[in-house]
Amino acid sequence: MSFSRPASFSFIGSTRPMGPGDFIWLAALGCASRGPTTADAVCACIDHVAAGQWAPSAQLVCDCLDEMARARHLSYAHDGRYGLFSSTTQGFGILRMMLSLPIERPTTPLGQVGLRLKLAFLDLAQPEDRLQHLQDLIVAHREELARRPAPCESCQSPGCFGRMWGEHHTQSLRRDLELLERMRAMPQTQLTTRREGCSQDGLHINCILN
Amino acid sequence: MSFSRPASFSFIGSTRPMGPGDFIWLAALGCASRGPTTADAVCACIDHVAAGQWAPSAQLVCDCLDEMARARHLSYAHDGRYGLFSSTTQGFGILRMMLSLPIERPTTPLGQVGLRLKLAFLDLAQPEDRLQHLQDLIVAHREELARRPAPCESCQSPGCFGRMWGEHHTQSLRRDLELLERMRAMPQTQLTTRREGCSQDGLHINCILN
Repeated sequence: MSFSRPASFSFIGSTRPMGPGDFIWLAALGCASRGPTTADAVCACIDHVAAGQWAPSAQLVCDCLDEMARARHLSYAHDGRYGLFSSTTQGFGILRMMLSLPIERPTTPLGQVGLRLKLAFLDLAQPEDRLQHLQDLIVAHREELARRPAPCESCQSPGCFGRMWGEHHTQSLRRDLELLERMRAMPQTQLTTRREGCSQDGLHINCILN
Repeated sequence: MSFSRPASFSFIGSTRPMGPGDFIWLAALGCASRGPTTADAVCACIDHVAAGQWAPSAQLVCDCLDEMARARHLSYAHDGRYGLFSSTTQGFGILRMMLSLPIERPTTPLGQVGLRLKLAFLDLAQPEDRLQHLQDLIVAHREELARRPAPCESCQSPGCFGRMWGEHHTQSLRRDLELLERMRAMPQTQLTTRREGCSQDGLHINCILN
Protein backbone atom coordinates (compact mmCIF):
# COMPACT_ATOMS: atom_id res chain seq x y z
CA MET A 1 0.00 0.00 0.00
CA SER A 2 1.44 3.34 -1.04
CA PHE A 3 0.77 6.81 0.25
CA SER A 4 2.82 8.46 -2.47
CA ARG A 5 1.22 11.32 -4.33
CA PRO A 6 1.63 12.33 -7.96
CA ALA A 7 4.54 14.74 -8.30
CA SER A 8 2.45 17.24 -10.20
CA PHE A 9 -1.05 17.66 -11.57
CA SER A 10 -2.47 19.88 -14.25
CA PHE A 11 -5.71 21.85 -13.90
CA ILE A 12 -8.13 21.01 -16.69
CA GLY A 13 -10.85 23.56 -15.93
CA SER A 14 -13.87 23.72 -13.68
CA THR A 15 -17.52 24.47 -14.30
CA ARG A 16 -18.46 25.30 -10.71
CA PRO A 17 -19.18 29.01 -10.27
CA MET A 18 -16.92 31.23 -8.17
CA GLY A 19 -17.83 31.38 -4.48
CA PRO A 20 -16.80 33.62 -1.56
CA GLY A 21 -13.71 31.49 -0.77
CA ASP A 22 -12.49 31.98 -4.33
CA PHE A 23 -13.02 35.74 -4.06
CA ILE A 24 -10.43 36.04 -1.27
CA TRP A 25 -7.93 33.82 -3.11
CA LEU A 26 -8.40 35.79 -6.32
CA ALA A 27 -7.96 39.16 -4.57
CA ALA A 28 -4.91 37.99 -2.57
CA LEU A 29 -3.16 36.32 -5.51
CA GLY A 30 -4.05 39.25 -7.78
CA CYS A 31 -2.66 41.88 -5.37
CA ALA A 32 0.45 39.77 -4.68
CA SER A 33 1.02 39.28 -8.42
CA ARG A 34 1.35 43.04 -8.87
CA GLY A 35 4.11 43.24 -6.23
CA PRO A 36 4.74 42.78 -2.48
CA THR A 37 1.53 43.47 -0.56
CA THR A 38 -0.07 43.14 2.89
CA ALA A 39 -3.22 41.63 4.42
CA ASP A 40 -4.54 45.17 4.98
CA ALA A 41 -4.09 46.01 1.29
CA VAL A 42 -5.93 42.81 0.26
CA CYS A 43 -8.86 43.72 2.56
CA ALA A 44 -8.89 47.28 1.19
CA CYS A 45 -8.84 45.93 -2.38
CA ILE A 46 -11.84 43.63 -1.69
CA ASP A 47 -13.76 46.50 -0.03
CA HIS A 48 -13.01 48.78 -2.96
CA VAL A 49 -13.83 46.31 -5.72
CA ALA A 50 -16.89 44.70 -4.09
CA ALA A 51 -18.21 48.22 -3.25
CA GLY A 52 -20.32 47.09 -0.30
CA GLN A 53 -21.84 44.02 -1.98
CA TRP A 54 -19.74 41.60 0.09
CA ALA A 55 -17.19 41.99 2.89
CA PRO A 56 -15.29 39.07 4.47
CA SER A 57 -13.94 39.45 8.02
CA ALA A 58 -10.26 40.35 8.36
CA GLN A 59 -9.75 37.04 10.22
CA LEU A 60 -11.13 35.05 7.28
CA VAL A 61 -8.81 36.90 4.90
CA CYS A 62 -5.81 36.16 7.19
CA ASP A 63 -6.78 32.47 7.44
CA CYS A 64 -6.87 32.25 3.62
CA LEU A 65 -3.48 34.01 3.35
CA ASP A 66 -2.06 31.55 5.86
CA GLU A 67 -3.42 28.61 3.87
CA MET A 68 -1.96 30.03 0.63
CA ALA A 69 1.42 30.59 2.27
CA ARG A 70 1.53 26.99 3.60
CA ALA A 71 0.70 25.72 0.08
CA ARG A 72 3.53 27.95 -1.23
CA HIS A 73 1.21 30.04 -3.43
CA LEU A 74 2.41 33.09 -1.50
CA SER A 75 5.87 33.81 -0.15
CA TYR A 76 6.38 35.99 2.92
CA ALA A 77 9.31 38.42 3.07
CA HIS A 78 11.71 37.39 5.86
CA ASP A 79 11.86 40.84 7.41
CA GLY A 80 11.11 39.57 10.91
CA ARG A 81 7.47 40.66 10.79
CA TYR A 82 6.04 38.42 8.06
CA GLY A 83 3.71 41.26 7.06
CA LEU A 84 4.73 41.59 3.42
CA PHE A 85 4.14 38.82 0.88
CA SER A 86 4.47 38.19 -2.86
CA SER A 87 3.14 35.60 -5.29
CA THR A 88 5.15 32.51 -6.25
CA THR A 89 5.27 30.75 -9.64
CA GLN A 90 2.67 28.33 -8.25
CA GLY A 91 0.60 31.32 -7.13
CA PHE A 92 0.55 32.75 -10.68
CA GLY A 93 -0.77 29.38 -11.90
CA ILE A 94 -3.55 29.36 -9.29
CA LEU A 95 -4.44 32.96 -10.21
CA ARG A 96 -4.85 31.92 -13.87
CA MET A 97 -7.13 29.08 -12.74
CA MET A 98 -9.17 31.44 -10.51
CA LEU A 99 -9.67 33.86 -13.40
CA SER A 100 -11.08 31.00 -15.52
CA LEU A 101 -13.82 30.03 -13.00
CA PRO A 102 -17.29 30.90 -14.31
CA ILE A 103 -19.31 33.46 -12.35
CA GLU A 104 -22.90 33.11 -11.20
CA ARG A 105 -25.56 35.15 -13.00
CA PRO A 106 -24.03 38.66 -13.20
CA THR A 107 -27.08 40.36 -11.65
CA THR A 108 -26.96 38.34 -8.41
CA PRO A 109 -25.00 39.80 -5.47
CA LEU A 110 -22.27 37.15 -5.54
CA GLY A 111 -22.20 37.20 -9.34
CA GLN A 112 -21.50 40.95 -9.26
CA VAL A 113 -18.64 40.52 -6.79
CA GLY A 114 -17.13 37.70 -8.87
CA LEU A 115 -17.45 39.77 -12.04
CA ARG A 116 -15.78 42.83 -10.48
CA LEU A 117 -12.90 40.85 -8.95
CA LYS A 118 -12.33 39.01 -12.22
CA LEU A 119 -12.16 42.32 -14.13
CA ALA A 120 -9.91 43.85 -11.44
CA PHE A 121 -7.20 41.28 -12.23
CA LEU A 122 -8.01 40.35 -15.82
CA ASP A 123 -5.02 42.37 -17.09
CA LEU A 124 -2.82 39.72 -15.40
CA ALA A 125 -4.20 36.90 -17.60
CA GLN A 126 -2.52 35.72 -20.80
CA PRO A 127 -3.92 37.60 -23.84
CA GLU A 128 -5.71 34.55 -25.29
CA ASP A 129 -7.19 33.63 -21.87
CA ARG A 130 -8.25 37.24 -21.34
CA LEU A 131 -10.28 37.25 -24.57
CA GLN A 132 -11.90 33.94 -23.59
CA HIS A 133 -12.83 35.22 -20.11
CA LEU A 134 -14.33 38.40 -21.61
CA GLN A 135 -16.26 36.26 -24.09
CA ASP A 136 -17.63 34.14 -21.20
CA LEU A 137 -18.75 37.31 -19.38
CA ILE A 138 -20.38 38.61 -22.57
CA VAL A 139 -22.32 35.34 -22.99
CA ALA A 140 -23.46 35.50 -19.32
CA HIS A 141 -24.75 39.05 -19.88
CA ARG A 142 -26.53 38.10 -23.12
CA GLU A 143 -28.26 35.22 -21.29
CA GLU A 144 -29.26 37.61 -18.51
CA LEU A 145 -30.77 40.05 -21.02
CA ALA A 146 -32.64 37.20 -22.73
CA ARG A 147 -34.20 36.34 -19.34
CA ARG A 148 -35.75 39.81 -18.94
CA PRO A 149 -39.53 39.50 -19.28
CA ALA A 150 -41.22 40.73 -22.45
CA PRO A 151 -43.48 43.78 -22.26
CA CYS A 152 -47.14 42.93 -21.68
CA GLU A 153 -50.27 45.07 -21.50
CA SER A 154 -52.22 43.09 -18.90
CA CYS A 155 -50.02 43.41 -15.83
CA GLN A 156 -51.26 45.12 -12.63
CA SER A 157 -48.06 45.13 -10.58
CA PRO A 158 -45.45 46.57 -10.34
CA GLY A 159 -46.89 50.02 -10.88
CA CYS A 160 -45.70 53.01 -12.86
CA PHE A 161 -42.47 53.70 -10.95
CA GLY A 162 -41.57 50.01 -10.72
CA ARG A 163 -41.89 49.61 -14.49
CA MET A 164 -39.76 52.72 -15.11
CA TRP A 165 -37.07 51.29 -12.80
CA GLY A 166 -37.28 47.83 -14.41
CA GLU A 167 -36.80 49.29 -17.89
CA HIS A 168 -33.93 51.45 -16.59
CA HIS A 169 -32.33 48.33 -15.08
CA THR A 170 -32.53 46.50 -18.42
CA GLN A 171 -30.83 49.47 -20.11
CA SER A 172 -28.06 49.37 -17.46
CA LEU A 173 -27.54 45.69 -18.25
CA ARG A 174 -27.26 46.53 -21.96
CA ARG A 175 -24.62 49.18 -21.14
CA ASP A 176 -22.70 46.59 -19.06
CA LEU A 177 -22.71 44.26 -22.06
CA GLU A 178 -21.53 47.06 -24.38
CA LEU A 179 -18.61 47.86 -22.05
CA LEU A 180 -17.53 44.21 -21.98
CA GLU A 181 -17.67 44.15 -25.79
CA ARG A 182 -15.50 47.29 -25.92
CA MET A 183 -13.01 45.64 -23.53
CA ARG A 184 -12.83 42.59 -25.79
CA ALA A 185 -12.14 44.84 -28.79
CA MET A 186 -9.30 46.74 -27.04
CA PRO A 187 -5.93 46.20 -28.74
CA GLN A 188 -3.74 44.05 -26.46
CA THR A 189 -0.93 46.60 -26.82
CA GLN A 190 -2.99 49.09 -24.80
CA LEU A 191 -2.41 46.98 -21.70
CA THR A 192 0.66 48.08 -19.83
CA THR A 193 2.92 46.38 -17.34
CA ARG A 194 1.83 44.25 -14.42
CA ARG A 195 2.85 46.83 -11.83
CA GLU A 196 1.36 49.98 -13.30
CA GLY A 197 -1.96 49.05 -14.88
CA CYS A 198 -3.04 51.48 -17.60
CA SER A 199 -3.98 55.14 -17.32
CA GLN A 200 -4.60 56.15 -20.92
CA ASP A 201 -8.02 56.78 -22.47
CA GLY A 202 -8.92 59.17 -19.66
CA LEU A 203 -9.46 56.27 -17.23
CA HIS A 204 -9.32 57.18 -13.57
CA ILE A 205 -7.07 55.31 -11.20
CA ASN A 206 -8.49 54.75 -7.74
CA CYS A 207 -6.18 54.35 -4.79
CA ILE A 208 -7.48 51.57 -2.56
CA LEU A 209 -5.22 52.50 0.33
CA ASN A 210 -6.82 55.87 1.05
CA MET B 1 -52.95 44.02 37.82
CA SER B 2 -54.44 44.56 34.37
CA PHE B 3 -53.86 42.74 31.12
CA SER B 4 -55.92 45.18 29.11
CA ARG B 5 -54.35 46.64 25.99
CA PRO B 6 -54.78 50.11 24.50
CA ALA B 7 -57.70 50.13 22.07
CA SER B 8 -55.60 51.63 19.29
CA PHE B 9 -52.09 52.86 18.65
CA SER B 10 -50.66 55.20 16.06
CA PHE B 11 -47.49 54.55 14.09
CA ILE B 12 -45.01 57.37 14.56
CA GLY B 13 -42.33 56.25 12.10
CA SER B 14 -39.34 53.96 12.21
CA THR B 15 -35.68 54.45 11.41
CA ARG B 16 -34.79 50.76 11.13
CA PRO B 17 -34.05 49.80 7.52
CA MET B 18 -36.28 47.42 5.60
CA GLY B 19 -35.45 43.75 5.99
CA PRO B 20 -36.50 40.55 4.17
CA GLY B 21 -39.62 40.10 6.36
CA ASP B 22 -40.78 43.59 5.35
CA PHE B 23 -40.20 42.77 1.66
CA ILE B 24 -42.85 40.00 1.73
CA TRP B 25 -45.34 42.18 3.62
CA LEU B 26 -44.79 45.09 1.22
CA ALA B 27 -45.22 42.87 -1.86
CA ALA B 28 -48.32 41.10 -0.48
CA LEU B 29 -50.04 44.29 0.72
CA GLY B 30 -49.05 46.08 -2.50
CA CYS B 31 -50.45 43.35 -4.76
CA ALA B 32 -53.61 43.03 -2.63
CA SER B 33 -54.12 46.81 -2.68
CA ARG B 34 -54.40 46.72 -6.48
CA GLY B 35 -57.19 44.14 -6.33
CA PRO B 36 -57.90 40.50 -5.36
CA THR B 37 -54.73 38.44 -5.72
CA THR B 38 -53.20 35.04 -4.87
CA ALA B 39 -50.09 33.70 -3.10
CA ASP B 40 -48.73 32.62 -6.51
CA ALA B 41 -49.10 36.15 -7.88
CA VAL B 42 -47.28 37.60 -4.83
CA CYS B 43 -44.39 35.14 -5.34
CA ALA B 44 -44.27 35.98 -9.07
CA CYS B 45 -44.27 39.70 -8.25
CA ILE B 46 -41.32 39.30 -5.83
CA ASP B 47 -39.39 37.22 -8.39
CA HIS B 48 -40.04 39.80 -11.08
CA VAL B 49 -39.21 42.88 -9.03
CA ALA B 50 -36.20 41.44 -7.15
CA ALA B 51 -34.85 40.08 -10.49
CA GLY B 52 -32.81 37.30 -8.91
CA GLN B 53 -31.31 39.39 -6.08
CA TRP B 54 -33.46 37.71 -3.43
CA ALA B 55 -36.06 34.93 -3.44
CA PRO B 56 -38.04 33.81 -0.36
CA SER B 57 -39.46 30.27 -0.26
CA ALA B 58 -43.14 29.87 -1.15
CA GLN B 59 -43.73 28.50 2.37
CA LEU B 60 -42.31 31.67 3.95
CA VAL B 61 -44.58 33.81 1.75
CA CYS B 62 -47.61 31.70 2.74
CA ASP B 63 -46.71 31.95 6.46
CA CYS B 64 -46.56 35.76 6.13
CA LEU B 65 -49.90 35.84 4.29
CA ASP B 66 -51.42 33.74 7.06
CA GLU B 67 -50.06 36.12 9.69
CA MET B 68 -51.42 39.13 7.81
CA ALA B 69 -54.85 37.50 7.44
CA ARG B 70 -55.03 36.68 11.17
CA ALA B 71 -54.15 40.33 11.96
CA ARG B 72 -56.92 41.36 9.49
CA HIS B 73 -54.53 43.21 7.17
CA LEU B 74 -55.73 40.88 4.40
CA SER B 75 -59.20 39.50 3.81
CA TYR B 76 -59.75 36.13 2.08
CA ALA B 77 -62.63 35.69 -0.35
CA HIS B 78 -65.12 33.14 0.98
CA ASP B 79 -65.26 31.14 -2.22
CA GLY B 80 -64.63 27.80 -0.49
CA ARG B 81 -60.94 27.74 -1.48
CA TYR B 82 -59.50 30.73 0.42
CA GLY B 83 -57.09 31.27 -2.47
CA LEU B 84 -58.02 34.84 -3.33
CA PHE B 85 -57.41 37.73 -0.94
CA SER B 86 -57.68 41.53 -0.87
CA SER B 87 -56.36 44.29 1.36
CA THR B 88 -58.39 45.70 4.24
CA THR B 89 -58.46 49.31 5.50
CA GLN B 90 -55.92 48.24 8.15
CA GLY B 91 -53.82 46.68 5.39
CA PHE B 92 -53.71 49.98 3.45
CA GLY B 93 -52.39 51.65 6.63
CA ILE B 94 -49.68 49.02 7.09
CA LEU B 95 -48.70 49.39 3.40
CA ARG B 96 -48.24 53.15 3.89
CA MET B 97 -46.03 52.41 6.92
CA MET B 98 -44.00 49.84 4.93
CA LEU B 99 -43.42 52.35 2.12
CA SER B 100 -42.02 54.81 4.67
CA LEU B 101 -39.33 52.44 6.03
CA PRO B 102 -35.83 53.55 5.04
CA ILE B 103 -33.80 51.21 2.82
CA GLU B 104 -30.22 50.07 3.39
CA ARG B 105 -27.52 51.51 1.13
CA PRO B 106 -29.00 51.22 -2.39
CA THR B 107 -25.96 49.39 -3.80
CA THR B 108 -26.17 46.50 -1.33
CA PRO B 109 -28.15 43.40 -2.38
CA LEU B 110 -30.92 43.89 0.21
CA GLY B 111 -30.91 47.65 -0.41
CA GLN B 112 -31.56 47.04 -4.12
CA VAL B 113 -34.47 44.69 -3.36
CA GLY B 114 -35.98 47.19 -0.91
CA LEU B 115 -35.58 50.02 -3.42
CA ARG B 116 -37.24 48.06 -6.22
CA LEU B 117 -40.16 46.88 -4.09
CA LYS B 118 -40.71 50.39 -2.77
CA LEU B 119 -40.78 51.80 -6.31
CA ALA B 120 -43.06 48.97 -7.48
CA PHE B 121 -45.80 50.14 -5.09
CA LEU B 122 -44.94 53.82 -4.68
CA ASP B 123 -47.86 54.85 -6.91
CA LEU B 124 -50.15 53.57 -4.09
CA ALA B 125 -48.77 56.14 -1.59
CA GLN B 126 -50.42 59.50 -0.90
CA PRO B 127 -48.94 62.23 -3.19
CA GLU B 128 -47.16 64.06 -0.35
CA ASP B 129 -45.75 60.78 1.08
CA ARG B 130 -44.63 59.72 -2.41
CA LEU B 131 -42.57 62.89 -2.84
CA GLN B 132 -41.01 62.37 0.60
CA HIS B 133 -40.12 58.73 -0.15
CA LEU B 134 -38.55 59.73 -3.49
CA GLN B 135 -36.61 62.47 -1.70
CA ASP B 136 -35.30 59.88 0.83
CA LEU B 137 -34.18 57.61 -2.02
CA ILE B 138 -32.48 60.56 -3.74
CA VAL B 139 -30.59 61.42 -0.53
CA ALA B 140 -29.50 57.75 -0.15
CA HIS B 141 -28.15 57.76 -3.72
CA ARG B 142 -26.33 61.07 -3.22
CA GLU B 143 -24.68 59.66 -0.08
CA GLU B 144 -23.68 56.54 -2.01
CA LEU B 145 -22.11 58.66 -4.77
CA ALA B 146 -20.25 60.73 -2.16
CA ARG B 147 -18.76 57.47 -0.81
CA ARG B 148 -17.18 56.55 -4.17
CA PRO B 149 -13.40 56.89 -3.86
CA ALA B 150 -11.70 59.86 -5.52
CA PRO B 151 -9.43 59.18 -8.51
CA CYS B 152 -5.77 58.69 -7.56
CA GLU B 153 -2.64 58.17 -9.65
CA SER B 154 -0.73 55.91 -7.30
CA CYS B 155 -2.94 52.82 -7.16
CA GLN B 156 -1.72 49.40 -8.32
CA SER B 157 -4.92 47.41 -8.03
CA PRO B 158 -7.51 47.02 -9.45
CA GLY B 159 -6.00 47.02 -12.93
CA CYS B 160 -7.11 48.55 -16.19
CA PHE B 161 -10.37 46.60 -16.66
CA GLY B 162 -11.33 46.92 -12.99
CA ARG B 163 -10.95 50.71 -13.12
CA MET B 164 -13.03 50.90 -16.32
CA TRP B 165 -15.78 48.85 -14.63
CA GLY B 166 -15.58 50.94 -11.43
CA GLU B 167 -15.99 54.18 -13.39
CA HIS B 168 -18.85 52.62 -15.39
CA HIS B 169 -20.53 51.59 -12.11
CA THR B 170 -20.30 55.15 -10.76
CA GLN B 171 -21.93 56.41 -13.98
CA SER B 172 -24.74 53.85 -13.54
CA LEU B 173 -25.29 55.15 -10.02
CA ARG B 174 -25.50 58.72 -11.39
CA ARG B 175 -28.12 57.56 -13.93
CA ASP B 176 -30.11 55.89 -11.10
CA LEU B 177 -30.08 59.20 -9.23
CA GLU B 178 -31.19 61.11 -12.35
CA LEU B 179 -34.13 58.74 -12.85
CA LEU B 180 -35.26 59.21 -9.23
CA GLU B 181 -35.06 62.99 -9.73
CA ARG B 182 -37.19 62.67 -12.90
CA MET B 183 -39.73 60.59 -10.94
CA ARG B 184 -39.92 63.29 -8.27
CA ALA B 185 -40.54 65.93 -10.95
CA MET B 186 -43.38 63.97 -12.62
CA PRO B 187 -46.73 65.77 -12.38
CA GLN B 188 -48.98 63.84 -9.99
CA THR B 189 -51.72 63.86 -12.62
CA GLN B 190 -49.64 61.47 -14.75
CA LEU B 191 -50.31 58.74 -12.23
CA THR B 192 -53.37 56.73 -13.18
CA THR B 193 -55.74 54.57 -11.18
CA ARG B 194 -54.73 52.00 -8.61
CA ARG B 195 -55.76 49.07 -10.81
CA GLU B 196 -54.19 50.05 -14.09
CA GLY B 197 -50.82 51.63 -13.29
CA CYS B 198 -49.68 53.94 -16.09
CA SER B 199 -48.72 53.15 -19.66
CA GLN B 200 -48.00 56.56 -21.14
CA ASP B 201 -44.52 57.97 -21.87
CA GLY B 202 -43.62 54.86 -23.85
CA LEU B 203 -43.17 52.83 -20.65
CA HIS B 204 -43.38 49.08 -21.07
CA ILE B 205 -45.70 47.05 -18.92
CA ASN B 206 -44.35 43.68 -17.80
CA CYS B 207 -46.72 40.87 -17.00
CA ILE B 208 -45.52 39.04 -13.90
CA LEU B 209 -47.86 36.10 -14.39
CA ASN B 210 -46.22 34.80 -17.59
